[in-house]
Amino acid sequence: MTEPQSRGVYAAVLTPLTESFEPDLARFVAHCHWLLANGCDGLAPLGTTGEANSLSVAQRLAMVEAAARGGVPMAKCIVGTGSCALADAVTMTRSVAAAGAGGALLLPPFYYKNPSEDGLFAFFSEVIQRVGDPALKLYLYHFPQLSTVPITLPLVARLKRAYGDTIAGLKDSSGDWECSAAFLREFPGFGVFSGSEEFLLPNLRAGGVGCISASTNVTAPLARPVYLAWRGNEADGLQHSLTAVRLVLQSYPLQAALKEVMARVTGDRSWRVLLPPNRPLTAAEGAALADRLEALPQMRPILRRAA
Amino acid sequence: MTEPQSRGVYAAVLTPLTESFEPDLARFVAHCHWLLANGCDGLAPLGTTGEANSLSVAQRLAMVEAAARGGVPMAKCIVGTGSCALADAVTMTRSVAAAGAGGALLLPPFYYKNPSEDGLFAFFSEVIQRVGDPALKLYLYHFPQLSTVPITLPLVARLKRAYGDTIAGLKDSSGDWECSAAFLREFPGFGVFSGSEEFLLPNLRAGGVGCISASTNVTAPLARPVYLAWRGNEADGLQHSLTAVRLVLQSYPLQAALKEVMARVTGDRSWRVLLPPNRPLTAAEGAALADRLEALPQMRPILRRAA
Repeated sequence: MTEPQSRGVYAAVLTPLTESFEPDLARFVAHCHWLLANGCDGLAPLGTTGEANSLSVAQRLAMVEAAARGGVPMAKCIVGTGSCALADAVTMTRSVAAAGAGGALLLPPFYYKNPSEDGLFAFFSEVIQRVGDPALKLYLYHFPQLSTVPITLPLVARLKRAYGDTIAGLKDSSGDWECSAAFLREFPGFGVFSGSEEFLLPNLRAGGVGCISASTNVTAPLARPVYLAWRGNEADGLQHSLTAVRLVLQSYPLQAALKEVMARVTGDRSWRVLLPPNRPLTAAEGAALADRLEALPQMRPILRRAA
Repeated sequence: MTEPQSRGVYAAVLTPLTESFEPDLARFVAHCHWLLANGCDGLAPLGTTGEANSLSVAQRLAMVEAAARGGVPMAKCIVGTGSCALADAVTMTRSVAAAGAGGALLLPPFYYKNPSEDGLFAFFSEVIQRVGDPALKLYLYHFPQLSTVPITLPLVARLKRAYGDTIAGLKDSSGDWECSAAFLREFPGFGVFSGSEEFLLPNLRAGGVGCISASTNVTAPLARPVYLAWRGNEADGLQHSLTAVRLVLQSYPLQAALKEVMARVTGDRSWRVLLPPNRPLTAAEGAALADRLEALPQMRPILRRAA
């Protein structure tokens, strides 16, 4: 994996699927390139938005390989490698490190509830030691609403003591800004990405490095100006405009809402396929979402953008 | 898969592990035979107790193959095949059906929270249709404390309408007896296994078929008499004696407690290895558990039993 530290506006890349629920590798690679050409500094495939936990390890490895072979700049990618199964988390993290990715985004094991700090430390330790790549950059994935297992300050402190700069950062998808702030106060220079662009500006001001968000599949052209201008006078206005869009999108199930918008932006209805148990928006929900986004002037150029 | 319906005292089989966290196939097969020789009517490997979600698909498939080759009577096995990933759930369910297992025990996909009934129906439907084996007997795994996703009465009704006897039953690990009772009232003849032997007698009296429990790795010699004598006068006393043991065991993390007891019963300390994030009991916890079990007269012959 590569220096320097990953920074900026990252999209949690949607996974285009075939009608039979296979990842569509060609459309996936094309979408990665499209995102980098449309405001994203970097990409975070195979996270929650990418429906990674609904995909097999073989499907996920094929996506990483397709991206690398398809010319996606891997140093700009922080790739999800989480699994409840230690052996699978190792396989995927090793593969992502070997592909030269900017980082691996690792969930805690999420089946057993209330695991001990010792148990979580053991899990992350085993992954790091088995991967055995000194260039590995690990981003811890804090998303307690879905993982049910939080990444705590004491756990990060312990991992950083043991593994130093391998513990490169954290994606905070808790939706609780105070949580990111606490990580940044405790660990200055820690690579904290907000899980929503709603907190992009406060995160940058507090020393964080950017955002990794589902909605930046669509909103990156509005998020990037916040990132570029965050020290300037216009930053608050730009953030306000960005947040208004995010709030509309997150009033729907996010994966479904973003796939709906992509279907409308590109004219490709196959974007509406989601792996069960996730479901696409209904036609009525999709139409209502489109109306609400059209009502936001900042969204109109994005919705009319060519795919 | 085979008729007649699976019934009786099943152990949710523990997975013996090597020090490097690989399933120890020889010890696993030996443990399966030992359970059948020590009070179990049947076996449920690769569930929560078996740490299946901490194992890769390849590791799980190897265990099924080792059991079949090792002479474990597959018709007496209801094998866990759950995964958040549709493709993995299909692979494992197909393999288990092809091996002639008595059933497949399938969790709902457990990463995304609050999935719709439509989404869950789609997941189970895809598994059944892709496996495409008319002899498949599917047991739905209701364990909301860990899966976070309940199996509801309307979902079962819909699945039974669509797939008939393929939807053979349910393992109720909710710990809420009223939940099992509701399934049995709504679906007479449904193959409901209690997830704890604490509810074995009420479950049989209400029309259920038995129990699939972590603690019957150890308590099967006490549970089997309840099953055999459930219509008799002694049933309540036998259940009371059984429940007293279960209550001690479940005051600890169950996988760790059962592995601790197996280590003590067999003298094989390698039983104390659990996959992270689960952890073995501490030495003090193990000693306290042993003392509490020794204090129960009904447990003494079990603790002194040869491995």
